[in-house]
Amino acid sequence: MSLETFSSRISDKEKALELFNAYDHFIFDCDGVIWLDDTLIPGVSEFLENLRKNGKSYIFVSNNSSRSRNSYVEKLEALGIPAVTKDLIYPTCYAAALVLKETLKLPQHSKVWVLGDEGIEQELRECGYIPLGGSDPRLDVDYYPEHELLEVDPDVKAVVVGSTKKLTYLRISTTLQYLLHDNKSLPFIGTNIDKTYPGPKGKTMPAGGAMVFLMQHISDRDFISVGKPSMVFLNNILESTGFAREKTIMVGDTLYTDIKFGNDGKLGGGNGSLLVLTGGTKESDLKKPAEDSSLVPTFYIESLGHLQSLLSDDRQA
Amino acid sequence: MSLETFSSRISDKEKALELFNAYDHFIFDCDGVIWLDDTLIPGVSEFLENLRKNGKSYIFVSNNSSRSRNSYVEKLEALGIPAVTKDLIYPTCYAAALVLKETLKLPQHSKVWVLGDEGIEQELRECGYIPLGGSDPRLDVDYYPEHELLEVDPDVKAVVVGSTKKLTYLRISTTLQYLLHDNKSLPFIGTNIDKTYPGPKGKTMPAGGAMVFLMQHISDRDFISVGKPSMVFLNNILESTGFAREKTIMVGDTLYTDIKFGNDGKLGGGNGSLLVLTGGTKESDLKKPAEDSSLVPTFYIESLGHLQSLLSDDRQA
Repeated sequence: MSLETFSSRISDKEKALELFNAYDHFIFDCDGVIWLDDTLIPGVSEFLENLRKNGKSYIFVSNNSSRSRNSYVEKLEALGIPAVTKDLIYPTCYAAALVLKETLKLPQHSKVWVLGDEGIEQELRECGYIPLGGSDPRLDVDYYPEHELLEVDPDVKAVVVGSTKKLTYLRISTTLQYLLHDNKSLPFIGTNIDKTYPGPKGKTMPAGGAMVFLMQHISDRDFISVGKPSMVFLNNILESTGFAREKTIMVGDTLYTDIKFGNDGKLGGGNGSLLVLTGGTKESDLKKPAEDSSLVPTFYIESLGHLQSLLSDDRQA
Repeated sequence: MSLETFSSRISDKEKALELFNAYDHFIFDCDGVIWLDDTLIPGVSEFLENLRKNGKSYIFVSNNSSRSRNSYVEKLEALGIPAVTKDLIYPTCYAAALVLKETLKLPQHSKVWVLGDEGIEQELRECGYIPLGGSDPRLDVDYYPEHELLEVDPDVKAVVVGSTKKLTYLRISTTLQYLLHDNKSLPFIGTNIDKTYPGPKGKTMPAGGAMVFLMQHISDRDFISVGKPSMVFLNNILESTGFAREKTIMVGDTLYTDIKFGNDGKLGGGNGSLLVLTGGTKESDLKKPAEDSSLVPTFYIESLGHLQSLLSDDRQA
């Protein structure tokens, strides 16, 4: 039995309305759902406006750890989606900082070693921590054995690994020293498990999960996963937004992160996941066997724009 | 039952002589056995001289893919081990080129995409291939979506991944394009599976296997492993050296590469592996459970220097 056997395709106005009316709260993945790289996906703006007009609430959740919440506000504005405030945005750089603070209770002013982009550093600072590593330009050079940052700073109390376009051998090597330090005792947080993302010009590009996996593999350690489909992340989100679990739906383009997140979290009473085909998952992927029910979306549709078209189609009204 | 239960410690002159006399051919791993980074391990030179004086033959096999055979000749000479010719050296950059040529029968003048250091490029050229990628300085820059090398060259016929200190996001991204190209049909060769190596100043450093596993993970592909413990590699070596399998012993510092290589290859009639404790494996590791008999060394000893000391100890003569 294939995935599509168990998933309901939203193919006409009736089904679209049924879906629209069943949920009060929409959690959107961003890349592949709202935008593709730097381009807004057609119809998204109108769909969000439709939600607002009808008193429904929504937030944006991204496994991308590179941008801070402030940076997302700017990006959404630049794409023509106004009035989105920082508290409606949950990237995994923020999730990582939250887990350090709320779950691990890491004391304020602790130093945290970072393999990742500036979003992680910014969110750590906002949560009261001191990021080391990360975008430090001293790490932009070629590796040499005497590099000062290869010596572990004993005040570092945790390690966060996420996506970085500044990946170099020196950054990997320095991070490895912290992961092995003191009998591998420093908490190791991985922002997400996505191997790749749909990049510019249709190219599949390495994502944060690639770097997390790499560090897991060479340090021979497990990591605390804070991105989708982590339930710690979902529970933090539901708590801070006040979204009622049974009236919430997760909308995403990736089965093993977004759809699993909604299904494992029993959103919509166990029927609260919508797959869109504008990102990493293609219609042909739905022909594959449904081996794991947590990866089967409740609904699927071509795009949010198509959902909006169906909803506003007067012919069928 | 721990590893040491099944492994014989060479602890006195009698045992040392027994080992020395039982084998005619010695296969040495390099890093952690012959040298540590740029320092010769004490006593190695004397032990090799002892082998030569007694008409025994030896070769050097390394999972390091960064240096070509020519470069190893120079390194050994610089460390004071003279008269080692290119044909006695088997690094995995050479193994990769050999597998393309002898096993996959890749036509001469084919282009081969490389993620790895210059050793791979040099050995590919010596085998008649045209390496692309690798140390190309156009890949030293930060990633940007329009980078020319992100466009796949359709003439590339294989991909070789090994260790590189020049690891960058751009090098990973370009390599990923080739691994995914044409329905993942290009042969994917991984030089070795070593996650780490004992680096300068006692630091554990990322090795070639880290890069191989990273590319395997994000491309969701298997690779052809050409380094130890690959039997294709051992068979190529035995064929070209003429070493009799039952009179050969493998000497190494790593259980899952060196020791498995000797054991799986039935060297010394199934008793032809010697672990030295000068590299990645420590005496405490021998207290661990022996879960896989292919990882249990026939013999172990502190170092080659200690073996030489025992052999030349007049007190016990």
